[in-house]
Amino acid sequence: MTEEQTDIAPEPESEDEDAYVLSPRTISSILYAVEVNDRSRLVELLEPLHPADIADLLEQLNAFDRMRLIRLYGNEFDGEILTELDEGIREEVIGILNPKVLADAVRELDSDDVVDLLEDLEDPQRDAILDVLDDPDRIAVEQSLTYPEYSAGRLMQREVVMAPEHWNVGEAIDYMRNNDDLPSQFYHIILVDPRLKPVGKVALGKIMSSRRSVRLQDIADESFHVIPVTRYEGDVAYAFNQYHLISAPVVDENDRLVGVITIDDAMMVLDEEHAEDMLRLAGVGEESSLSDTVMETTRQRFPWLAVNLVTAVLASLVIAQFETAIAQITALAVLMPIVASMGGNAGTQALTVAVRALATRDLTGSNALRVIRREIAVGLVNGAAFAVIMGIVGLVWFGSLDLGLVIAAAMVINLVVAGLAGIGIPIVLEKAGVDPALASGAFVTTVTDVVGFFAFLGLAVVVLL
Amino acid sequence: MTEEQTDIAPEPESEDEDAYVLSPRTISSILYAVEVNDRSRLVELLEPLHPADIADLLEQLNAFDRMRLIRLYGNEFDGEILTELDEGIREEVIGILNPKVLADAVRELDSDDVVDLLEDLEDPQRDAILDVLDDPDRIAVEQSLTYPEYSAGRLMQREVVMAPEHWNVGEAIDYMRNNDDLPSQFYHIILVDPRLKPVGKVALGKIMSSRRSVRLQDIADESFHVIPVTRYEGDVAYAFNQYHLISAPVVDENDRLVGVITIDDAMMVLDEEHAEDMLRLAGVGEESSLSDTVMETTRQRFPWLAVNLVTAVLASLVIAQFETAIAQITALAVLMPIVASMGGNAGTQALTVAVRALATRDLTGSNALRVIRREIAVGLVNGAAFAVIMGIVGLVWFGSLDLGLVIAAAMVINLVVAGLAGIGIPIVLEKAGVDPALASGAFVTTVTDVVGFFAFLGLAVVVLL
Repeated sequence: MTEEQTDIAPEPESEDEDAYVLSPRTISSILYAVEVNDRSRLVELLEPLHPADIADLLEQLNAFDRMRLIRLYGNEFDGEILTELDEGIREEVIGILNPKVLADAVRELDSDDVVDLLEDLEDPQRDAILDVLDDPDRIAVEQSLTYPEYSAGRLMQREVVMAPEHWNVGEAIDYMRNNDDLPSQFYHIILVDPRLKPVGKVALGKIMSSRRSVRLQDIADESFHVIPVTRYEGDVAYAFNQYHLISAPVVDENDRLVGVITIDDAMMVLDEEHAEDMLRLAGVGEESSLSDTVMETTRQRFPWLAVNLVTAVLASLVIAQFETAIAQITALAVLMPIVASMGGNAGTQALTVAVRALATRDLTGSNALRVIRREIAVGLVNGAAFAVIMGIVGLVWFGSLDLGLVIAAAMVINLVVAGLAGIGIPIVLEKAGVDPALASGAFVTTVTDVVGFFAFLGLAVVVLL
Repeated sequence: MTEEQTDIAPEPESEDEDAYVLSPRTISSILYAVEVNDRSRLVELLEPLHPADIADLLEQLNAFDRMRLIRLYGNEFDGEILTELDEGIREEVIGILNPKVLADAVRELDSDDVVDLLEDLEDPQRDAILDVLDDPDRIAVEQSLTYPEYSAGRLMQREVVMAPEHWNVGEAIDYMRNNDDLPSQFYHIILVDPRLKPVGKVALGKIMSSRRSVRLQDIADESFHVIPVTRYEGDVAYAFNQYHLISAPVVDENDRLVGVITIDDAMMVLDEEHAEDMLRLAGVGEESSLSDTVMETTRQRFPWLAVNLVTAVLASLVIAQFETAIAQITALAVLMPIVASMGGNAGTQALTVAVRALATRDLTGSNALRVIRREIAVGLVNGAAFAVIMGIVGLVWFGSLDLGLVIAAAMVINLVVAGLAGIGIPIVLEKAGVDPALASGAFVTTVTDVVGFFAFLGLAVVVLL
């Protein structure tokens, strides 16, 4: 069977790691063109690049080179570059662009991209951009901005291709041929009833491969999802990923069609949500970016470090209760960080699994109890294994069987508590409406530190003194 | 301006959190139907559900209920449910399904879904499934399995809609109307030269809105990305996200078109890659799932805990060098975990930012030095802030200015080292071809523990004794 064939097949190319990164040589050439003020060379070098790559390049330059590049690039600057830039840098770049170039750049964009651009700008910059738009575009953008931040309404594009539910393929094709104002990207026609309520969608591929007389209803997709305009964008991304949607109609509170969301926007949101979860778990501001300044970065990280300081001091207060014991048996000071550290790691493992499972809706009321029981059992098994190992280490290192037994017992206790806290705390926070990724880390580490030190030092006092 | 409007706009609905989760009541009804062996009720309850939701439901049940549900559901069981199941459970479910039901389920699937299904199965199950396929499908699947695991070749579907580059819109539409074998989902027509090399792609929407006489070349997409068949799937997902691709042609080593990848597959890969990064960072096996057994989970987590034990013992060896000092000043034992803990947290912050930036290709050779400098500066600033705070705590708590100065100095040193290790270690690992998410955590914590204890206790010996 193919098992063998698979084994001898070549590994995916190792150079792939850099497949989508600008080569250092290209970057040097670009910087050199900027250095010597060679505009035609700069344009020649940037011309083949995708706006997303030019945005990445700008993010990687220091502020001075960035300014010089943008000034030299002049009116070649494309609106799409702006939408691809990190928020922090975007504001800076808009400030550098000369107003005429900015106006041209923005006018090229779709309304949902303009919305994306405006969301994070301060009022004066926002007004300046709105002013350059034509009336219909400006009204569309202003309308979108009335929807809550991070809602489907902000994400959707307002240009929708729709058809009455009773049309056939021929009518749909004629309509599209005669419509000059179709959106640049669309993959389905939304079927609507007379009150503009979406009742189905038809894939363009189906229309292309059907005779003109076929009714659109008869080739509509089997599964059909409608998204309320106020739905949180993270839930929208989840639905696209879960149901393999390519596009989905968005409706207002009266079930009327108001826009459409396509999978590329949903993919972007999914990516952002993941990054946020990961950064929040590590106690880093979720909006952090590599181009932030030292002071911005410091300010993002300080709060979590401050929280950690409080929990660390709490743990120290526990240790302080056992100062006499430590003075008599200094081995306790040597070994106690091991118990706390193992608990912290086991807790983080359970916590990360729980946060991920909550985000993917895999951890729900119906299996929470079973998963909690599993975590406790895992804590017991791993606790027992490391109890044996540490018991032997304690015995061999310090020549005391009792000390070995004490650290072994503390290890079991702390790993069980770590499993329980790691899974239980995020579940409780989620129930309370707090993002489990944001707050769980601090709680879990506090629990494992305090329990770890208390169990080890407390048992030591009972057994050894 | 709209700023005010935004502020008064309603928040995204709060019930959204559960928007895509099966209600506990539905789950109870389903379980009850299984309990009382009511097949028609079970079918009625499952019928409106998407296969992805049924798969989630199966994952949340315990093994006994799962088996009873599948047996009762019988030949209603849909092949798509299999492709949506977690790998661990999938094998179990395939074992439960009766061979005829399994054969029907598999025959419904597209070839790329069958490949996805077979990848993780053991040989006997694999052969059983291959046997039920028709010859052309079986050959297509076996061919796909010859591509390396996690390559574009495994991800792509082999059904491609292509057209000679010289065709016009009318010819393309006629071809599609007369072709009974079009894939169920497609969004572009790939233009190929006579040697089957892809030279462009045309969005279906563009074809629909153009006159029959328009040449396909003239309405082809501006940006066009071709993916080598051996490219790593994570890089494919990156390209889709970076360049907002909807579909992209896949070519073999002779640049001939062999398949096409669509964004929904890329989105799934992106989601998996994220989960892997997150779970690896926490030292959890990246294939872990909520439905794993206690022993599987224990086995996944044990290795990282073992690594952590070694690093914790290393840190203890550092402490052991200062046993005499600790016996004289027990305050050292009380305060030392604070320095180590703060360093560990600051290191994890820098590490997470670095791992994320490496994954998104935002951290490259051209800005690495600047980012490293920034992390050191952040360590200095946060270190100074917490030095002052801890200095005061040390002074007030233990009444010793010298002790306050010692912990303050150790704090600065450890936070600077944490920043340096947090950013430097993943960069070095990436250069060495090791996944930075996998190994960095252990290295960074070792560094911050060892440096934290050594700086604090070492300075204490010099200053206080």
